[in-house]
Order: sequence, then structure tokens, then C-alpha cells
Amino acid sequence: MSSVVSKASRKVVVVGAVAGGASCAARVRRLDEHAQITILEKGNDPSFANCGMPYYIGGEITDRHKLNVQTPATLKAKLNLDVRTLSEVLAIDVAAKTVSVRELRTGKEYSEPYDELVLSVGAKPFLPPIPGIDRPGNLALRNLDDMDRIVSWVSGGEGGKTPAKTAVVAGGGFIGVEMAEQLHLKGLKVTLVEALPQLMASLDPETASMLQRHMERKGIEVLCNSPIKSFEPPADAGTHGSDVTLGDGRRIAADVVILGLGVRPDSALAKEAGIKLTARGAIVVDDQMRTSAPHVWAVGDAIEVRNPMTGGEWMVALAGPANRQGRMCADNMLGKARRYAGTFGSSAVRVFGLTAASTGLNERGCQMAAIPYACVHLHPSSHASYYPGACTIALKMIFRTGDGPDVGKLLGAQAVGEDGADKAIDTFATALQAGMTVHQLADLDLCYAPPVGAAKSPVNLAGMIAQDMLDGLVSTVQWSELHALAADPDVLLLDVRGEHEVVQKPLHASAKNIPIEQLRGRLNELPRDKLIVTSCLSGQRGYYAARVLMQSGFERVRNLDGAVKTLENSPLDSH
Amino acid sequence: MSSVVSKASRKVVVVGAVAGGASCAARVRRLDEHAQITILEKGNDPSFANCGMPYYIGGEITDRHKLNVQTPATLKAKLNLDVRTLSEVLAIDVAAKTVSVRELRTGKEYSEPYDELVLSVGAKPFLPPIPGIDRPGNLALRNLDDMDRIVSWVSGGEGGKTPAKTAVVAGGGFIGVEMAEQLHLKGLKVTLVEALPQLMASLDPETASMLQRHMERKGIEVLCNSPIKSFEPPADAGTHGSDVTLGDGRRIAADVVILGLGVRPDSALAKEAGIKLTARGAIVVDDQMRTSAPHVWAVGDAIEVRNPMTGGEWMVALAGPANRQGRMCADNMLGKARRYAGTFGSSAVRVFGLTAASTGLNERGCQMAAIPYACVHLHPSSHASYYPGACTIALKMIFRTGDGPDVGKLLGAQAVGEDGADKAIDTFATALQAGMTVHQLADLDLCYAPPVGAAKSPVNLAGMIAQDMLDGLVSTVQWSELHALAADPDVLLLDVRGEHEVVQKPLHASAKNIPIEQLRGRLNELPRDKLIVTSCLSGQRGYYAARVLMQSGFERVRNLDGAVKTLENSPLDSH
Repeated sequence: MSSVVSKASRKVVVVGAVAGGASCAARVRRLDEHAQITILEKGNDPSFANCGMPYYIGGEITDRHKLNVQTPATLKAKLNLDVRTLSEVLAIDVAAKTVSVRELRTGKEYSEPYDELVLSVGAKPFLPPIPGIDRPGNLALRNLDDMDRIVSWVSGGEGGKTPAKTAVVAGGGFIGVEMAEQLHLKGLKVTLVEALPQLMASLDPETASMLQRHMERKGIEVLCNSPIKSFEPPADAGTHGSDVTLGDGRRIAADVVILGLGVRPDSALAKEAGIKLTARGAIVVDDQMRTSAPHVWAVGDAIEVRNPMTGGEWMVALAGPANRQGRMCADNMLGKARRYAGTFGSSAVRVFGLTAASTGLNERGCQMAAIPYACVHLHPSSHASYYPGACTIALKMIFRTGDGPDVGKLLGAQAVGEDGADKAIDTFATALQAGMTVHQLADLDLCYAPPVGAAKSPVNLAGMIAQDMLDGLVSTVQWSELHALAADPDVLLLDVRGEHEVVQKPLHASAKNIPIEQLRGRLNELPRDKLIVTSCLSGQRGYYAARVLMQSGFERVRNLDGAVKTLENSPLDSH
Repeated sequence: MSSVVSKASRKVVVVGAVAGGASCAARVRRLDEHAQITILEKGNDPSFANCGMPYYIGGEITDRHKLNVQTPATLKAKLNLDVRTLSEVLAIDVAAKTVSVRELRTGKEYSEPYDELVLSVGAKPFLPPIPGIDRPGNLALRNLDDMDRIVSWVSGGEGGKTPAKTAVVAGGGFIGVEMAEQLHLKGLKVTLVEALPQLMASLDPETASMLQRHMERKGIEVLCNSPIKSFEPPADAGTHGSDVTLGDGRRIAADVVILGLGVRPDSALAKEAGIKLTARGAIVVDDQMRTSAPHVWAVGDAIEVRNPMTGGEWMVALAGPANRQGRMCADNMLGKARRYAGTFGSSAVRVFGLTAASTGLNERGCQMAAIPYACVHLHPSSHASYYPGACTIALKMIFRTGDGPDVGKLLGAQAVGEDGADKAIDTFATALQAGMTVHQLADLDLCYAPPVGAAKSPVNLAGMIAQDMLDGLVSTVQWSELHALAADPDVLLLDVRGEHEVVQKPLHASAKNIPIEQLRGRLNELPRDKLIVTSCLSGQRGYYAARVLMQSGFERVRNLDGAVKTLENSPLDSH
């Protein structure tokens, strides 16, 4: 190998070859052709596509090789990386700047020196102390070995002679939801069990419930509020896995159980080396990815990152941030002085053609951080409604209220739809990271042609509604308040839809109906001493009606945000 | 009608009922329940969906009513608007604050007073003085009457006894491209004729050529560099329309000719009233939509707006800005003091399933404004490439170079793809409006799941490449320089793809091939006294190779930006 540069070459050791580790090693190589770069990977595979694993299990991805394109040989040839798989790091000596490594193939142990060490150790499945959690056929999914084990078990190759017919998926987060979908597509009868009242803790209840109902319509049984009490040997000899017993005594027979109960930082190695961890076990890094130990860096699911919306910290186990952190870590190691702005929590999940995406804080996040906020719910079309194929996006935006210079700033957004949800959320995510206000969202100049957008985009509309709220043009009530409002004798629910619409999808038995077209002529039918809550299908005509009333001497008027479209998929509506 | 507010009601007159005018009138009503709002519309229809007209002509939209949901009666009932169609405004008396109106149905003329006047007069098709341009069957498309006329002519109801079989579409802008697609879908043999060297002036040549080739593959003949000399009576008696003769003498028989030669502000009314226009005839407004005449406002295609990228002004005839200007105009009229940030030129067009979208400046725009810039071309997947259905997005980003605090700021972006192009451009558009730099794009936290995105999104990747250029990690050459470079004895083209790839899609006959995997061992084959231009399929491996060379003592190295994927669809590649 020819080189005219002569300097002592830097020795970089990366622990963990997935996402952040692989990104970091490749970036170091581009910045320093002469560095010695060693990747130590406990598992079999370097740099595999971990987000793709559910889709191989379900059969949507048929070629396993697609998940595992790189080998140590290709990484050596292309990037001159020394990738050692089945190589477990047992300990870090931060004073001596060495790691002890065990070759899992041979049992041989050796010491490897480093100038710079990168911990991309990831997070491991959380296995709570539920009796029987280690039963055969209870399978978690972290790497390709786990994936192969699930495929084998489901096909009957392990644990039973016939292919699995029933599955319980424990946990309604990303992996749980994706695995439930994929096992259903594979033909299994799937029950998804979640201890909390809703799926997908990143979403608010009325957004998560849309996903839940969609899964239920497709034939998955979803049991929320259902903590698992134990995994028992199956009562029926034909069951290959476990009987899953719930807190309420219910017992579900499962040929296979997928454990998707969350993850925890895989930080034991760092802890034993004296590297600073959080109370929850995440590796503490500065905004350049440095740990508390000199020359030791960390990236990915094992670290705690800044939450830019709250000013605090959080753990976010997602592929995008891990990849970007890996690149940034390499840059800083090589002297570039980049700073990580934090993780904004942009994420997406797709289930049976329906995508739920979100960015920033949800309501719970605002409440925990004591940030004053308001929400808007709307249901715009994915593209011009007159052009064929438009579908509805259920959109929720959260923005800052209260006092001070941050009033009106975007805090978060959630969208669910067959088309356009991820597009809208990427726009919101960009605006959030730019510190934009709802006023700026109202004015955003976005691309439009009838088949691919709308002259007023979903993001524009959300900004406009929020702007109207901040300007005092309208006050709203939320879907979750409806029952209390309906029961309150001081409140009149006023539905301004057409009579046919009301019959098709009633708002509430107590609601009075005056179609918006007749409202100006029938104001005398409305009480001036009550709070009037206007409503319609999606919130727009209710807003028009509220404006009429507010300017006609009615002093207490509110519009039901998102109206019937938000209610009909919410947890309130008994379906 | 009940009202407890007693004040002299404001009289607002809006000229023009489409897009900006309709938005403004509706917004005024929401802000002022007691205003008298009159809309004067010369045509038959209030508030129709003008962007949808090509799709009704082509048959993708079958229900004409969908383009024309509102009537004067519905607008009266819902918003208490006084909409007068077939009412032409003949003159404005800005001193007396009146407009003279002619009822086209009756010929009756009357004077209508206003407190505030809004001009949403739009733009009209540009008809250059080409001999025969007014021949029967030469049809432009501005409103539903025009649309009906085209439908009738094409079906043979006017101008001929059989349905049209051949069409010439004159002009390759939005309307021309959409009409060419739609008439082709209707079964006509379509020739699209454009005087300039490319379609879609909003795009750069290598982006526009992708659209052109796609249309050609679908069976449309596209003739660029082809100014029309005249429209002649057809030589063949079976032709219903004209023979279109081109500058080079070619003669194309057309049963129908669509005139899509651009638009001009329909500003004669404003001019005669003494309202200030630009040299190009656009109405001058301030950043609150006020014209030079007191109490006269203007919005939409007839006005000139700020170009925030250049600091200058431009005319942008698009529905999105018109709608937002209409709303903002109402807000300012009612005392809200909003300011229009300018139009960023975000737009999209979809042809046969392929979407081309853009935002901000293109290269020509940068050059005209003397803004120093650089480009990146890349070809990311619309979602994770291992998940089925991913398609390639041809992406181009333009960012600021030179000196000063704006270096690295995004200037514009263009994307072409079957999926994801509009999504990427909306993200770029938001970043552009936030004044983001390419460094911030590299770090953007966007949503990802394998079916709907990638861990490094197209926007992240574009930012990362530009960041590398600004950091001096790589210098690039552009597709348009290839021929000159290949002819230069001081240059070596180095293709680092695999041999099979090179055979399938050669870069250039003179290029030397060393696969990236062999590069480090074969550096001695490369000349140290020449400029080495690295290349591959999409630019990534070429970049890796450039980094190897630059750190191995090669002093002049550049990477071919976008590589073969950009070249193969560019105007350079004779297809």
C-alpha cells in the first residue's frame, strides 16, 4: 500500500458493528486513510439492517442477504476496516487504553490497545421478572440470530412439529406492533398484549387508538391495560409455546411469544469500566459524544441524549439518531468540533398500509416537563380532494402557549394515514428543529400539484388553526372533554352539520343540530347564558359557526377540536 | 339576522373569485361577521379548482362538479358572501372608492362602492404574435369555460366531426406538461413543442431532461429548441386544427393545439386606475399586500412578490402562494399586521407517475443573482432499499458557497421520482424558509420506518455531502463538464465500479477502471501529475476513492457529482 504521509497511525477500536458503530468506523476511514480501525462485534454479523428483521420474519423481505450486505471481507476491501465478529469485549481498561476481547469461536482471550474507543453497544431487550419469561418459545428480537430463531420456531423447526398457529406479542411498542403485523401476514392468529392503556407510548391516546383499531379490523386482537402475570406451560398439548396469563386471569395459548417489552442500555461494560451512567443505566455523553472517560466515546441506543424540547435528557432507541451520532463522533474524534443538537424523537411505524408518524413531544411529554401547550386536531386530505385516490390524514399538532418569547413555537406533531403522514411529519420535524412558530407554519411555501399535495398543505392548515387560537379568534375543547361537557347543564353542544350527516355519525344524543347554512337565521334558538360548544365533522364548520356566534353577542363559545373525526377513533368511542 | 354589535359595516369588494380572492373573502367573513363582502367574477364560476382542469380533460377526474363545489348560493348560505358571477369590472375609481361593473348577462352597468378593494385578477395566457395563433382549435386553458371548450373540441363537438387524434401542446411549463400527459391518456398522439432547450424552466436541464425522457418513453414526442413559426391551415383535410410549423421548417398536423406559452398578469384594470405596476406588468404590493392606491389590495398571480433567496422580486403563478396571500391580505385589512415573507417557488408536477418537485433557486437563478453556489446530485432510495418497492429519487441540492455568514445556507433543491420526491422537497422547502445550512440538514432528525423512509434520509445525505465539500474533504466536477474533462490530456477519468457495472453502463471510453476494492493496492497505476476525476454509479464510491487518493499524496482529485446516474438522464447522454 502506497502512502506518502508518514505519521504514527491512530488506532480506533469500535465496540459494536451495527448502525452507530458502523457509521462511525466508515466515517473515520474517510477522514483518516491511515488510521487502524478495528470493529469488535459480539454477534455473527457486522452492520446488518436491524430495522428490517420483522419483515423477513413476516415474509415481506424474502432474501435474507438483503439484511446483511456487508461482510468483514467487503468492509476490509472497501474501507480497510478490521472487523472481528464473534468477538466479545469483556472489559475496558481506560487507564491502560486497552480492551480485553474473547474470541467466541475459540475461547481465546486477548488485549487490544486503542487510542480512541467508541462504544456502540446498543440496547438489549428488557425482560421483566415475570414468572416463566424464560420459557422456550418466548423470543426477543435483537439481532439476526434472534431473527433466525423466531423463523425457525414459527415454522415448527424448534419447539413443535407443526408450524405455529397462534402468537402472543408482549408489548405494543415499535417491535411489538411490527411483529404483530408480520406474524398476522404469515397466517398466525395474533394477540397483542400491552400493560399500558394504549399502544405506542410515543403517541397520544387518540392517535394510538387509530392504529389499534386498524389492527383490530385486520384481525389482530389487541389487549391494552393487560399486564402479563405469568407464562405457564400450555394446558393444551397442541400448543408449542406458553399459556400467557394476564392480570385479570385471562389465559391465552400461544405457539410462540414475542417479547417486545422495551429495551435497556447494554451498558454493563461501560459501568464496570467506571464510565458514568445515568440512574437508568444509559451512558452519559457530552454533546460531542464523549463519555466521562478520556478517549472513550459512545453513540446509539446505549446513550442518553439531550431532549431539545424540554431542555432535559432522554433515551431514544432509533436508527436515525444512532447513524448520525456515529458520523458526528468520528468527526469530533478527528477534530471537527461538531455538536449534537439532541434527539427530536421523529419516528414512524407502518401497520397494514397505515403509517403513524410523530416528532417532538406528545401531550404527556409536555405535561411532564410542565410546558404550557395547546393542541389542534385536523383531518386534511393527502392530496387535492378532487383528484382520485386522496386519503385522510389524522393530524395532531402541539404548540407552546403561556407567556414569553416561545409562545407559538411548535412542540410536536403526530399523523396517521395511508399516505402523506410521514411527509407531513418530516415537514413538522424540520420546522421543530428550526424553532419555527405556528405562524411560520401557516405561511410555509410547500410544493403542490393535485396528485401530490394541496394548495393549503396539512402543515399550513395546522399552523392556520393554531394561529387563530393564539389570536383569540377561537377557543377549543378537546375530544376527551366531551362526556363531561355533555353532562354539564351549563353547556349546549351545537352540531352545525347537515341533518343527514348527523344521522350517519351522531356527535352526542344531547347535541342540538342547526346546519351552518341556517345558523345566522336561527341565532334566537340558542341560549345566551350557556357555554356553546360548536362541532361538525372535522372542526372547520364548527369554527365558522363559533366565529358567527362570537361576533353575534354569544360570550362563551368553544369549538370541538377535530370534531367527530377525532372522536370516532378515540378511546372514548366504544366501537 | 340577529346582531348585538352595532357599527357601520365595512364594505369589501373582491375582484376575482378564484384562489386568492376566495380565500380572502372567506377570511374577511371569519374576522368580521358584519362586513358586506361582494365578489365580482367575470367568469361563470366562483372558486373553482383551476389546478384540476387538465385532469378533467384527460378523464382522470370524471365528475365536473368536483372542480366546482361552491356556487353563489352555497357561499351566501355558509359565509354570507355576495358573489356575482359574469360581472366584469370595467374600471376602478380609487379616489371615489368605486368600481364600475358590467353584468355580462344583461349588459347593465353600475357603480359599486367599496371601503376596501382586493384585486385577485390573476394571470392570463400569454399569446405571442405568432401568425395564426388565433386559429380555431388553438385553445388556452384558464377557466372552466376554456376547459369545456377543449373537451368539446377534442371530442369532435366543435371543429370537426370525429374526435381529435393528434395534438400539439405549445409550451413545456406546468400546463403544457400536464396537458400533454392528459391528452396522451385520452388516446391522442401528442407532440409537445418548446422553444427553450428544456421543459420546465423552474428546473435545471439535467432534472428537466428526466421528465422529458419519461414522457418520451410513454410515447409523447417532445421537441425542445423548437420555436413555433406559424399556425397554418391544415394541408390534410382530415386534420381539424392547424399545421404547426416550427423554426426549422418542420410541420406537425394537429387536430387540436393547446397554448401553454406562459401567463401574464391580468393587470390592465389596475394600470388604468393608476395603480403602480412593474415593467413586466405585475401589480406592485408591499409585504402586507397593499397596492400603491389607498384601500386597494392585490394577491395572487397578478402581483410581484419578494424572492427571499435573492432579495429581489419575482412573479410566481402558483395556487399555494395565492391562497396564503388571500388569507394574509384579509388579516392585514382587519388590522392584524402580518408580513409576507416572500414566495420560495416550491412547486411540483406529476407526469405518468413520475413527480418532479422543486423549491428555491435553480442554478440559473443563482447565476442571475450572482450568488456563489455549489450543487450536489444524489440518488437515494425512497425508503430502505432492502424493503420491497423502494424507488430511486434523483435529487439535486444547491447551497451557498463563497464568503460570509451565509456560506452553507440552502438555496434550492430539485427532486424527481415515482415516490418521495415531493416529501423530500417539502422538507427542503421548510429548511430553506428557516434559513438552515447544509450542516443542519445533515443532522435533521426525520421519521423512519423501513417502508416509509431511510435511517439516513435523502435530505440528511444531501446535507452530509455538501458538508464534506465545505469542509474540503472532497471537490467535485459536474455532469456538464464531462466531455471537456474527457478531452483534456491533463485529466484521468477513474471509474471505481466493478468491471461488470462498467460494461453495462460505461462512463466514458477514455475512463480507466480500478474497482474501489482494489484501489489501495493499485495506486502505482495512477499518474501523480494529472487531475484525477473519480466516478462510480451514483457518486458514493467515487467519493470514497477520492478520499483514498487525497490522503495518499495525489494532489489534484475531484469526484464526479452524481456520477453515471446523473449523466445517463442528462442532456449530454444521447439517448
